Formats: sequence, C-alpha cells, structure tokens
Amino acid sequence: MDAEQLREQAHKMPGYLGKLLPDSAPTYPTLLEHVLDDVQHKILPGVTHWQSPNYFAYFPSNSSIAGFLGEMLSAGINIVGFSWITSPAATELESIVLDWLAKALFLPQDFLSSGRGGGVIQGTASEAVLVVLLAARDKILKTVGRSALPKLVTYASDQVHSSLQKACQVGTTSSTAVDPLPALAKVTKTNNIWFHVDAAYAGSACICPEYRHFIDGVEEADSFNMNAHKWFLTNFDCSLLWVKDRSPLIQSLSTNPEFLKNKVGLRAHIRNHIAMAAKFEELVVQDKRFKVVAPRTFSLVCFRLLPPPNSEDNGNKLNSDLLDSVNSTGSVFITHTVLSGEYILRLAVGAPLTEVRHINAAWQILQEKATALLENL
Amino acid sequence: MDAEQLREQAHKMPGYLGKLLPDSAPTYPTLLEHVLDDVQHKILPGVTHWQSPNYFAYFPSNSSIAGFLGEMLSAGINIVGFSWITSPAATELESIVLDWLAKALFLPQDFLSSGRGGGVIQGTASEAVLVVLLAARDKILKTVGRSALPKLVTYASDQVHSSLQKACQVGTTSSTAVDPLPALAKVTKTNNIWFHVDAAYAGSACICPEYRHFIDGVEEADSFNMNAHKWFLTNFDCSLLWVKDRSPLIQSLSTNPEFLKNKVGLRAHIRNHIAMAAKFEELVVQDKRFKVVAPRTFSLVCFRLLPPPNSEDNGNKLNSDLLDSVNSTGSVFITHTVLSGEYILRLAVGAPLTEVRHINAAWQILQEKATALLENL
Repeated sequence: MDAEQLREQAHKMPGYLGKLLPDSAPTYPTLLEHVLDDVQHKILPGVTHWQSPNYFAYFPSNSSIAGFLGEMLSAGINIVGFSWITSPAATELESIVLDWLAKALFLPQDFLSSGRGGGVIQGTASEAVLVVLLAARDKILKTVGRSALPKLVTYASDQVHSSLQKACQVGTTSSTAVDPLPALAKVTKTNNIWFHVDAAYAGSACICPEYRHFIDGVEEADSFNMNAHKWFLTNFDCSLLWVKDRSPLIQSLSTNPEFLKNKVGLRAHIRNHIAMAAKFEELVVQDKRFKVVAPRTFSLVCFRLLPPPNSEDNGNKLNSDLLDSVNSTGSVFITHTVLSGEYILRLAVGAPLTEVRHINAAWQILQEKATALLENL
Repeated sequence: MDAEQLREQAHKMPGYLGKLLPDSAPTYPTLLEHVLDDVQHKILPGVTHWQSPNYFAYFPSNSSIAGFLGEMLSAGINIVGFSWITSPAATELESIVLDWLAKALFLPQDFLSSGRGGGVIQGTASEAVLVVLLAARDKILKTVGRSALPKLVTYASDQVHSSLQKACQVGTTSSTAVDPLPALAKVTKTNNIWFHVDAAYAGSACICPEYRHFIDGVEEADSFNMNAHKWFLTNFDCSLLWVKDRSPLIQSLSTNPEFLKNKVGLRAHIRNHIAMAAKFEELVVQDKRFKVVAPRTFSLVCFRLLPPPNSEDNGNKLNSDLLDSVNSTGSVFITHTVLSGEYILRLAVGAPLTEVRHINAAWQILQEKATALLENL
C-alpha cells in the first residue's frame, strides 16, 4: 500500500495503524530517519488536515508561524505553571496577556486583573464551562446550604455545545446564531443566576469594532470565554476565561497542600535516579544530626534536621529555617511537607541532567546551613 | 536592573513582570529579535527551572530531546483529536502506544484495547481521577438510582493528592509511601467499590522488573494511572489512564451532537475570513437550487440543496448524499448539522491558507455534485 492508497483507505477503516506498527514498544533505540519515515508514511496519511485551505469542517483550529514558534519556546523550557512559585513568569504573563486581550475586546473594567476579576487559560471551552459551573455552584450553595444541591438548575439554549450536555453558552455551535445577551442579563440579574457568556468561536471576531456589538450585554455577565485555538492563530489547546470576581473560582478550585507551599534507556534513566536518591539517603544517615523520617521507596528522600536535646523547638522551626536558608542560596531547590505534625524536608531526584556531583553539592549546602543554624541556636 | 538582579528579585515579588511589559497589546508587529530579547531578559529570569540538575522540588517534570522533537512535530501539524474522524492517526496511535506501555508495565491483559479495556491520555492525574470518579459514580447510580447521589462515598489515604480533595489514590505525594494494594483490592471487591490505583509518579519505575512489585494487586483494580510527564521524559502535560472496562467511561463522557458526526494583523485575518464566507453565501444565494437556511453572522454558512417540487424526500437524504458526494472527492471537507429536523450543510471558513480560489473551487464541486444528484433522482 503506498501513501496515496493509504490516504484513501485511512478514513474508511478504524484500526489502520495497528496493522502498520509492531505489537509492543521497541526495546532498542532506532534512527531518527526511521522515525520520520514512519511519520511520513504511516501517520500523516491518517491525519485530518485541519490546516488545509480546503478544510471547512466543524470550526477552524489553526496555528500560525508565531503560534508554532511559541510552542517551541514553551516546549523547550517545559514550563510547569500550577502555582506562581512553580514559574512566576508563566502566571504573570498569563494575567498580563489576558488583560491585554480583555482591553482589545472592550470587556468591562471588572474583568481585568487589576481589580477583583481577571483571566485564566483553560484547555478547552468545555473545561472553562466546567470551572464556571463549579464556582457558580459553590457560590450559591454557600447561601442556600449544601443540601440544596439536587435542586440546582442550569439554563442554556437548546443549541448549546455538547460540553454542557456533559457538565451555559451564548451562541450556537451548529449555526453561530447569537443569543440576545441584554435580555438574558435582565432575567439572570432579577433571579440571582450566574450569567456565563460562551463565545468560544465568535469571540475572536469581537476584536473588530464592527462585530463587537454581538457581545453587547457582556457588561452584565459574571464570566466570559473564547477559544484562542479556534480563530486566533494559537495552537490547540487554549481557551481563555474571564471572571468579574475571581474569589468563588479560587475557593472552588484551590487546594493548598503542604508540599505545594513551598525502556533499556528508560529503565537505566529510572534506576539512575533511584540510585542517586539512595546515595543521598546514605549521606543523610551518616550525619547523626539528621534523620531519614520515612522509608525511601523511589527517588524521594524525606528527612529532617534533629533539634538539639534541650531545644524548645520540636524541630519544625529549625527545619523551616533550614529550607529557607538552603533555597536562598539559589543553587538548589528542595521542598517540604508535614507528616504527623512534623515539618519534613523532601529531596526528589528526577532531572535528566542531575549527576552524583549535584547530589553531593546539595548535601554539602544542607550540611553547611545546618551547622550555621545549630551554632546560632 | 540587569538579568542577574532580576533573577534575584523575581522570586521575591509577585507582579515583577507587569512592570516590564506595556499596559496593552502592541498594535503593530515587532521584530522576532525583539521578542527573543524579551524572552531572554524579562521571561527567563522569572522561570522556575524544572529542567535544572539542581532542581529537587515537588516531583520532577522533565522533557528530553525526543520529547521536544515530538512536541515540534505535534505543534507543526496542530493535531485536533477529539474524535476518531478529526484525526484517525491521533486516536489510533494513542491506543497503540498505551497498549505498548501497558505491556511494558506488565498490566493485566484486561487493560489492553484488544478487549473491553484500554488506555487514554489525560492532561494531569487530577483529570484522570476526575474522569474515573465520574465513570464510577454513573456506574453505581445506574444500579442504585440517581436519588442516591448524596450518599456516595469516596475512600482514600489521608496522604492523598490534593486533586482528590477537590474531586482515590494509592501512594502518597508527600512521601511516596505505597499503599497495600492486595489488601485494598479485597475490601473493594467484597463491597462492590470501584478500585482506582493512582501511581502518577512511581508508575514509571514499574517498567523496571525490580520495582514492579509495588503495583502488585493492580490486577484487581478497575483503573490505573501514571504521569508520563513526571518521570518518563515527556513534555508536560501527559497523564496516562487505563481502565478494564471502557464502557462506563464512554457512557459518562460521550456526547454525539449532530455537528460532531460527520490586532491590525489579527483583525485583517478575521475580516478576511468573514468576507470569504459572505462571498460563499452570495454564490449560494445566486443558485436558486440552493437556500441559505440560517442568517450568517461570522464565517459559517448554513445552507441546503432544495428537493425538487414533487420529491418524496424532504431534502434530508438529498443533502446527506450531497455531503458524502462532496467529501468523497477528497478535495474539500465540510460538515452538517440538523436544525428543526432539517439536515443542513455547514461551510466554515477559518484556515489561514484559505483564499477566494478555494471558496470558488468548493462551490464548484458542490454545484457539480448537486447537478449529478438531481439528474439521477
């Protein structure tokens, strides 16, 4: 079967790819050329070409050179942004750019992060609607009591997107009809209903003044979303959500656990990390001022500095100070947790670039800072 | 402030980036060099360097050269894979590779896609657990009735991950202790409880035979997940979820709506697409055999071929045949929807590569196929 025949067949037969690939993962590495050959001859013929100029299905989901370059930068750094400290630039840039776009869309001031509102990126409009539903639910349950849960109701157009059949929306996915926002706003306001405006597709058009009137009435909405990955030249997936009051959203979705405060080749990779953690554990065991406090199973070592015998502190302050002191060097970054009331330090080995010398250096910093702290007690 | 000083300050002051960037989006394009300068001097100093060999915090989340190259390929194609037809290769490759990994982890046969089970990629372990909770909830509610909803209970370790405080898990994020799976399996089996094993971090280690015993007992689980983005050299985010029986998952999360079956620069981009849709609408209006059936607002045109006066068909079969006939050419791809019982064709303009000639060509194909169909009635 050549690529042309496969292209013809691929859309007609679920299961085409299983016939072209082996039953199990390759045990040994292969040449990049062979991988790219597979992509060319086995994958691409089975791809639906959303970027084709002849693609008119569903809604668009298009990238651009800028989008691609952004993806490369982001993939290269591999940003993890689940809280501010895990990458300050990620959280801050997200807020800033969503403020920029809110201004370009002439959203009311209340949606900007300078006040009580702000924007946040979700994966898809389905996720945005789910997040809003959770916030709206918890906000009203606070007033009427949790036992009213089964009585809560969601109103939506009969042309609403499938995400709401799973988990409210303005505008319709089938035909892009636009709901009358000002009239809806009046009804929701009178009845104290959370008013969400989903402009997943059409929202992009509203940066053109001549189309902005389609979201007139958004001034009265509690939340608004649009998908940058649909019509805004951004790679899938990127759904933008704004709220006027971020507190119910934060309350519904926040957690603040202690640890958030502060094959041949793959097997070798895993074993290497576990061996380095074992090595670190050994170093801790050898220094009688420290104690390993939980059995090490994989590549995480939980340990603490013991308080001197007559100390008033149970060691919690001492270890919290040690963590600050070590992380303040800027040379290493470790985190902590609390187990049975004890403040514990966590060293997790996992970066592919980590070598034994990094473990040794981390341990040396820990020992030096511990010595300094104990001398000053 | 130079980069070094900023680096020092960035972690101490939320809001650093707002001081370095303008208040609103740039109105005109800028040189790539300037963008990269900003990345270097304003963004990177505020990035938490998860890829650094001195990074020991939280859990690892690391990429690799293979991971980066995969991201480039994926970003270049900008795959959208929300159902099989939206990119057959995406769905099929996902199933195949998850089967490969299930075998490498010695998961029981029941978790493979060849039977009633299979694997599916989620963003994070929180999403995986949420998906499993929905499936488990709907499965039991089918037996005991929906009114029992407030009586449902979830059991988990007191060291469980924060995602469950929001939305069960084995192993603990704080300290990587491992729960006794076989004992838990016995309890859940006796009491008809859905048994989920979350090995988000440690799951990767289980491809080494000497660590596989930590998930002994997974044979009795209903579902299992691990995060490839933690310790498996895959870019964030990629959480792998396997279930033994995919039907409750599919029933809880499926929808099958009709349409799924089948700035200066940005403003110009949007206006251009709307203008092309208006042009297409004009073409449709000029051909009396066709009718535009819903008011066009943005870049989607809803239209249908009218059945001849004495036809038995109300036009639904005719338009369905027309859709098949047009899409079968392989030259264009359009979709359909049903409005008030009428089968309608949808042409959505949105690919940056689309020009007026593609619109004209699409319309020509539609006309030719319509002529052929009407002649054969």
